[in-house]
Amino acid sequence: MKKKNKKVNAAILIIGNEILSGRTQDKNTAFISSWLNSKCGITVKEVRIIPDDEKTIIENIKILSKNFNYVFTTGGIGPTHDDITAESISKAFKVKYEYHKEAFFILEKYYGKTKFNDGRKKMAKMPRGAKLIYNPSSAAPGFIIKNVLSLPGVPSILNSMIENCKRFLTKGLTIHSQTLNLYTVESNISKKLGLIQKKYKKDVDIGSYPFFRLGKIGVAIVSRSNSKLKLKKVNIELKKLAKVKRIKILKI
Amino acid sequence: MKKKNKKVNAAILIIGNEILSGRTQDKNTAFISSWLNSKCGITVKEVRIIPDDEKTIIENIKILSKNFNYVFTTGGIGPTHDDITAESISKAFKVKYEYHKEAFFILEKYYGKTKFNDGRKKMAKMPRGAKLIYNPSSAAPGFIIKNVLSLPGVPSILNSMIENCKRFLTKGLTIHSQTLNLYTVESNISKKLGLIQKKYKKDVDIGSYPFFRLGKIGVAIVSRSNSKLKLKKVNIELKKLAKVKRIKILKI
Repeated sequence: MKKKNKKVNAAILIIGNEILSGRTQDKNTAFISSWLNSKCGITVKEVRIIPDDEKTIIENIKILSKNFNYVFTTGGIGPTHDDITAESISKAFKVKYEYHKEAFFILEKYYGKTKFNDGRKKMAKMPRGAKLIYNPSSAAPGFIIKNVLSLPGVPSILNSMIENCKRFLTKGLTIHSQTLNLYTVESNISKKLGLIQKKYKKDVDIGSYPFFRLGKIGVAIVSRSNSKLKLKKVNIELKKLAKVKRIKILKI
Repeated sequence: MKKKNKKVNAAILIIGNEILSGRTQDKNTAFISSWLNSKCGITVKEVRIIPDDEKTIIENIKILSKNFNYVFTTGGIGPTHDDITAESISKAFKVKYEYHKEAFFILEKYYGKTKFNDGRKKMAKMPRGAKLIYNPSSAAPGFIIKNVLSLPGVPSILNSMIENCKRFLTKGLTIHSQTLNLYTVESNISKKLGLIQKKYKKDVDIGSYPFFRLGKIGVAIVSRSNSKLKLKKVNIELKKLAKVKRIKILKI
């Protein structure tokens, strides 16, 4: 994994009617995003969930691959008729959709020649020029073409493949994060918090999220930055704010 | 709720760095989508998750409100500095961002005059011309302006408000859905399933989703349509397919 001394971002494109209809709860966004953040210094800037529709996939691949350093797609690379991600990406990049020799070999070996039917063969078809993202749990590989990485939709399989994406990614500046849990309500600190955010707006992102814990109301203040020093300064100001307002800090 | 004899669609815009960073798992998409589907005959066609960034919110409100019948936003209508949804929507529609009299009254009554501080007052500021979506659990109302409905990000509060959205929506054709659970693998049925989908592509959407149950592998075939008759026909064909292939059907 190469390292870059600047910010690197990504988008996630979740492809699948089952997520859009509410039948299935998407779990891949949180997993991919946390992994990119903590392991690669890459920030996810946008997520889109779209149906299994060729035109929609093509449009979104074109826009997102242009606007972000990386695009991760999930879903639509299985053996059935509604698995159209690989073919749609081929069309978006105007390259042939064809058997990938190594993928074909991997799948043929995995299933055995007699059980390697048309549905399974489909999983070896990819955009020409794609490189494989190996799948240690169920053989069928994902792929990368240009800056688009395609992974399956089933979370357990996707999770097993994520480390194999690393070698294709350029690492960004590490993103540090700190959380301060205050036993108060948002409106009690919103004014002062806004002033602190304003003061550090160039370097630190401060978010505030209400929580309920053992019957008590609190606010989690999450600060994120590429600079540990700036984060430390923000922490000092937040603790000062808590002291002045006589707010108890929850230590976890 | 008026009723329309045609398809009605919607988009969901999830606003919040905490979802994008993977810190918080989004639960609102599945909830809103299921509710719109089952209660309003409205299909969600796209979901976007974006950061608390004014320019990004404005751009997305403009695009989504143009492309879909309704847009539901979640998040960013609380009292802190990172709650900028209402102001950004005002800018997207080029209307004033100002106190909504009734919202101000509701919040002042809820908190009491002495505790109605600036942070809380902020929650009464909305785009001029907005109508309120009442909040039975924590008072602070959501709002609708044009075809955009703004709801809070905390799932329990959002859930309590959803029924109050109904009077602003035009009901679409009812979407019927059926699921057939087959004890097989996708590649065993993918070819025939593709042919059935092709035959009914105008009226029925068929999706196939692998599952694991008590150590056995299966595939859930989910069909969705506005026509009960067409759905029945698809069901007959699917059962015939199972019979020919000697696939056991899981009855739930």
